[in-house]
Amino acid sequence: MRCIVPEATPMTERTRVVREPHRAVYDRETIYKILDEGFVCHVGFSLDGQPYVIPTLFARVGHALYFHGSAASRMLRNLSGGLPVCLTVTLTDGFVLARSVFNHSMNYRSVVALGQATLVDAPQEKREALRGFTEKILRGRWNEARQPNDQELKATSVLRLPLSEVSAKVRTGPPIDDEPDYALPVWAGVIPVRIAFDSPIRDERCAIALPAYLQNLQR
Amino acid sequence: MRCIVPEATPMTERTRVVREPHRAVYDRETIYKILDEGFVCHVGFSLDGQPYVIPTLFARVGHALYFHGSAASRMLRNLSGGLPVCLTVTLTDGFVLARSVFNHSMNYRSVVALGQATLVDAPQEKREALRGFTEKILRGRWNEARQPNDQELKATSVLRLPLSEVSAKVRTGPPIDDEPDYALPVWAGVIPVRIAFDSPIRDERCAIALPAYLQNLQR
Repeated sequence: MRCIVPEATPMTERTRVVREPHRAVYDRETIYKILDEGFVCHVGFSLDGQPYVIPTLFARVGHALYFHGSAASRMLRNLSGGLPVCLTVTLTDGFVLARSVFNHSMNYRSVVALGQATLVDAPQEKREALRGFTEKILRGRWNEARQPNDQELKATSVLRLPLSEVSAKVRTGPPIDDEPDYALPVWAGVIPVRIAFDSPIRDERCAIALPAYLQNLQR
Repeated sequence: MRCIVPEATPMTERTRVVREPHRAVYDRETIYKILDEGFVCHVGFSLDGQPYVIPTLFARVGHALYFHGSAASRMLRNLSGGLPVCLTVTLTDGFVLARSVFNHSMNYRSVVALGQATLVDAPQEKREALRGFTEKILRGRWNEARQPNDQELKATSVLRLPLSEVSAKVRTGPPIDDEPDYALPVWAGVIPVRIAFDSPIRDERCAIALPAYLQNLQR
């Protein structure tokens, strides 16, 4: 099956950004870049009228998101068909300190993807998803570690959400104060926030030297 | 109204951790510590059968979570009563590299709080919530910045979720491999992950020196 995907995602009433629409982004290039930089997503689904939000690892492969099915295990036990979900990925880039508390904000990039998730059956597609989970963070890990055997692949449930209904929201730059507040003697600016990796801690039963792809990990 | 809160949260069928129950935590001290270390939560709610998950700032004040109502603005337009929500806070502590891909994992601490959120009306309660949003990250900021006036307080919608149905899930420590895999020549261990703050960037219209509480920010 060929799939024609437009460069811009179609804005629907459901993905239309209601609050602060000037921060909305609908082009795939920006959206995919945010998705590829994140490694934890938050999966939302409903059960008996109660929403649940569960963190889990994910990866984008082509025009779909793959995530660990265990995140939605509570729901999956009750559903055989497609599962209405929302996958949200949030990157926090900075605290925005305005002169007034009211204008404090965050610099961030977030993606919200809506749709129906389905269980992945094909072993090869499942392998590609698992490869995505590890390689997106630690490029080279897939080839060093022992890859999943058939039994392990079967024991792993992976869900796929096509990226058909998706939008992003981005805030960048300095604080924006009300004009009179600029005269106040209050420090204003941005505190950059990022994910940092510290030195790897070798397992006590491991005698292998740190491989090249784990040295100088940077975000 | 006095509220008697037990040290351990009552486990309900909805907060019972289904997957990997040995990682479940139900004591309030641990749960509150996780909540107080996070600054972004993911709010889940449903509309017309479609779940939505929106990131927003939050703070714990006493035995309740407060979060920006704008996160749920899409929903709030349609609801006047309590809004069934799930608030999830996730802290990522490390990538856990096992010898086999199958046993790769993450070290993390997450809290899931369920219930009905209601709009906060009382200005003083709203002020305390806003104070919580800033002070939990930047202790001292509330007293330096211009505090919200009545008009700004009115323009800010804040939601409250009582912490009555809440659980946490925690993974720590090294990878756990299948016994035969320990002989494989694969590096294994943990890559610690944390939030880092970089040097503050002063707004170009600000001439104030960096205040003490913003120097040497650490996570």
